[in-house]
Amino acid sequence: MAELNELSAVEAARRIKAGDLTAETLMRACLERAADRDAAVRAWAHLDPEQAIAGAKAADAAGNPGPLAGIPVGVKDIIDTADMPTRHGSTIYGLNRPNADAAVVTLTREQGGVVMGKTVTTEFAWRNPGPTGNPHNPAHTPGGSSSGSAAGVADKQFPLAFGTQTAGSVIRPAAYCGAVGFKPSVGTHSRAGVKELSGYLDTVGCFARSVEDVGFFDAALRGTAPSPLDIFDGAPPRIGVMVPFRIEAEAAALDMLETVWRRAETAGATIIDIASNTSFEALADVQTVVMTGDSGRALEWEYERHPERLTRFYRDNIALGLAMAGDALAGAKARADKARAEQAALFEGVDILLTLPAPGEAPLGLGFTGDPLFNRVWTILGWPCVTIPAGSGPNGLPLGAQIVAPAGADATALAAAAWLENALS
Amino acid sequence: MAELNELSAVEAARRIKAGDLTAETLMRACLERAADRDAAVRAWAHLDPEQAIAGAKAADAAGNPGPLAGIPVGVKDIIDTADMPTRHGSTIYGLNRPNADAAVVTLTREQGGVVMGKTVTTEFAWRNPGPTGNPHNPAHTPGGSSSGSAAGVADKQFPLAFGTQTAGSVIRPAAYCGAVGFKPSVGTHSRAGVKELSGYLDTVGCFARSVEDVGFFDAALRGTAPSPLDIFDGAPPRIGVMVPFRIEAEAAALDMLETVWRRAETAGATIIDIASNTSFEALADVQTVVMTGDSGRALEWEYERHPERLTRFYRDNIALGLAMAGDALAGAKARADKARAEQAALFEGVDILLTLPAPGEAPLGLGFTGDPLFNRVWTILGWPCVTIPAGSGPNGLPLGAQIVAPAGADATALAAAAWLENALS
Repeated sequence: MAELNELSAVEAARRIKAGDLTAETLMRACLERAADRDAAVRAWAHLDPEQAIAGAKAADAAGNPGPLAGIPVGVKDIIDTADMPTRHGSTIYGLNRPNADAAVVTLTREQGGVVMGKTVTTEFAWRNPGPTGNPHNPAHTPGGSSSGSAAGVADKQFPLAFGTQTAGSVIRPAAYCGAVGFKPSVGTHSRAGVKELSGYLDTVGCFARSVEDVGFFDAALRGTAPSPLDIFDGAPPRIGVMVPFRIEAEAAALDMLETVWRRAETAGATIIDIASNTSFEALADVQTVVMTGDSGRALEWEYERHPERLTRFYRDNIALGLAMAGDALAGAKARADKARAEQAALFEGVDILLTLPAPGEAPLGLGFTGDPLFNRVWTILGWPCVTIPAGSGPNGLPLGAQIVAPAGADATALAAAAWLENALS
Repeated sequence: MAELNELSAVEAARRIKAGDLTAETLMRACLERAADRDAAVRAWAHLDPEQAIAGAKAADAAGNPGPLAGIPVGVKDIIDTADMPTRHGSTIYGLNRPNADAAVVTLTREQGGVVMGKTVTTEFAWRNPGPTGNPHNPAHTPGGSSSGSAAGVADKQFPLAFGTQTAGSVIRPAAYCGAVGFKPSVGTHSRAGVKELSGYLDTVGCFARSVEDVGFFDAALRGTAPSPLDIFDGAPPRIGVMVPFRIEAEAAALDMLETVWRRAETAGATIIDIASNTSFEALADVQTVVMTGDSGRALEWEYERHPERLTRFYRDNIALGLAMAGDALAGAKARADKARAEQAALFEGVDILLTLPAPGEAPLGLGFTGDPLFNRVWTILGWPCVTIPAGSGPNGLPLGAQIVAPAGADATALAAAAWLENALS
């Protein structure tokens, strides 16, 4: 039974629909894994085994399940759940129990998924970390802000999880933990009931252990059939390799990226080197302005009413955000809007871009979740991003490869990631 | 001869004026020490031994020296020197040779001091460090931004040095290196020729190895006789012990502070416990707003013309500063102005405040100069601050004790620091 927690979501759903497995049995296997591993990984902000089993039993009892067919799902703790606490990684919300589920939680449950529990987030999904450790070595950060979702999926405590990304909070922790992370095009999934940092940037994303699973979960949330992952089979993708902020990358990460594109080339892909450009890299500043300005406004209530319960980092950042000129913030968004169109030229002659999801391996220590620099510009451009595991670095920790597709070309991103995942296997 | 570099500035000046020592001999001893130690400490942004010796010879030749009588002085490399490079810790200024000396350098030379060389600063006196290591253990930071001045004085490469403080750039590195640091009341020394970060906050300060020396240097710059350091002899000070942001302090630093006030009490001081207050601590946010807003405006040229030569930290911070609303920045300064009056009530019934100069020992690593949180509010209040060495922590690195006096009461701050230095000896 211990192996059931390792099943892919697609396989588990197949077995449950075929009557070969119950949601309850699957949930119990995941809970057993979580109990074994919790002291090391600490992925959970809230986990009540009886509640999780009751949810699975209800899914079994409902019969004829939806596509998510009783699959356990980890939900980042900035996403509202009416039956579980939602603490946003802050003591200000220590007793918070929302009145309603967030839209994506409602969808998950309607599609047959079972919320297993709430996963650790950094404070309001920015910098100050929770207790979660990297499942490959708990002395290293799992990344953040979606720390518990990334760590728990990679650690096989649950097959699917939600994260959110404002700077690099899905892609970076997925890469650090050796999971697959998918940040769809901005605006894809509803953010109703998700604690807001930036209306311009916040994007709900998903974690799984394979591209197939992450696409399966994403499709269930869209209410569509999964997009085909085989569009590049027999017609390998044209891949633009682009490494912005190269000087900030670790040597092992750059070496691994070269290994990845050489394997892709061997498998038939066309590889085109794409130079980074200063107008692209300047967008990191614009992202900082938008994130700081928006989040200062979004968290003004917490700042005014409970300043003593905010970390120093947050107080400073909210103060900076509140001090920001309205026209400067609007101007930064206008500049990003313009860049979304202009930078689309990067895709001329290529299907996708291949780049680093993070500077390298997960840093040592749990005090800092690592630098989101390799994510910030893709996030403000709003383009779909997938990261897949790609070997390991000198500390034996996972490295990743990030695939970026044009705005709205989420299916292309997923199919190229699946093709690349296969080329690397 | 090797011991001459260890002389106090006051004693060296006395010997030179008495004809028992030449400025050249003293400079050669300091240069020998610098040569021995440079590979470990790396305090220098510019050091030309022939130029330093020529300066000392000229001082000797001038005869009848001023108060600084041929004493070698280290000058932080954001302070202009017409005969030496002034790089501001940035490659943007790699070839910069100012046309004129800064006002404080002119004064130093007029008073008989000899500029030995330029000391390492962080990039534009904010976060990104240079190569300097802590003289007590070069694997640890010396603090910043006045890294080379603090390390070089503590390492006995020169007896006196200039620093500047916008957040904690004099007091913190002095504490980390085991030096005495003095940040006088804001506005005391001219900032003409000092690279500006914030017109509201920037304060020129001094480093030495004793309170007597730092007062001697400061007085020479004011063009006055040193203020008397014995005003508390026989009439011990009333000391308010106040630890804002206590939760951020290391246990060893808090223990040492208790040792310090108990020693002071034994020596006759009146000790009064002063609670921190939320309006005081809230000024840390105001300092962040003022520093970010002002420095964004001050460094706009660098941001627009040479963005690729700024570190990511600086680009982000300048972008945030430039996005700041003018009225928000002005409002923050107005609030600080008001606080300067309101918080003066902290001194009711006490002569000075005793507090921590830093969270604890110098952190491991040269990538981060440590947290200026324990300095920021005192800086925005503009009050005179002195830090003196006070034992060491679990890693064998120096701890400090910070003395704060009311606005303009610089002589009180120095005299209380001298009294406390004596009580601890």
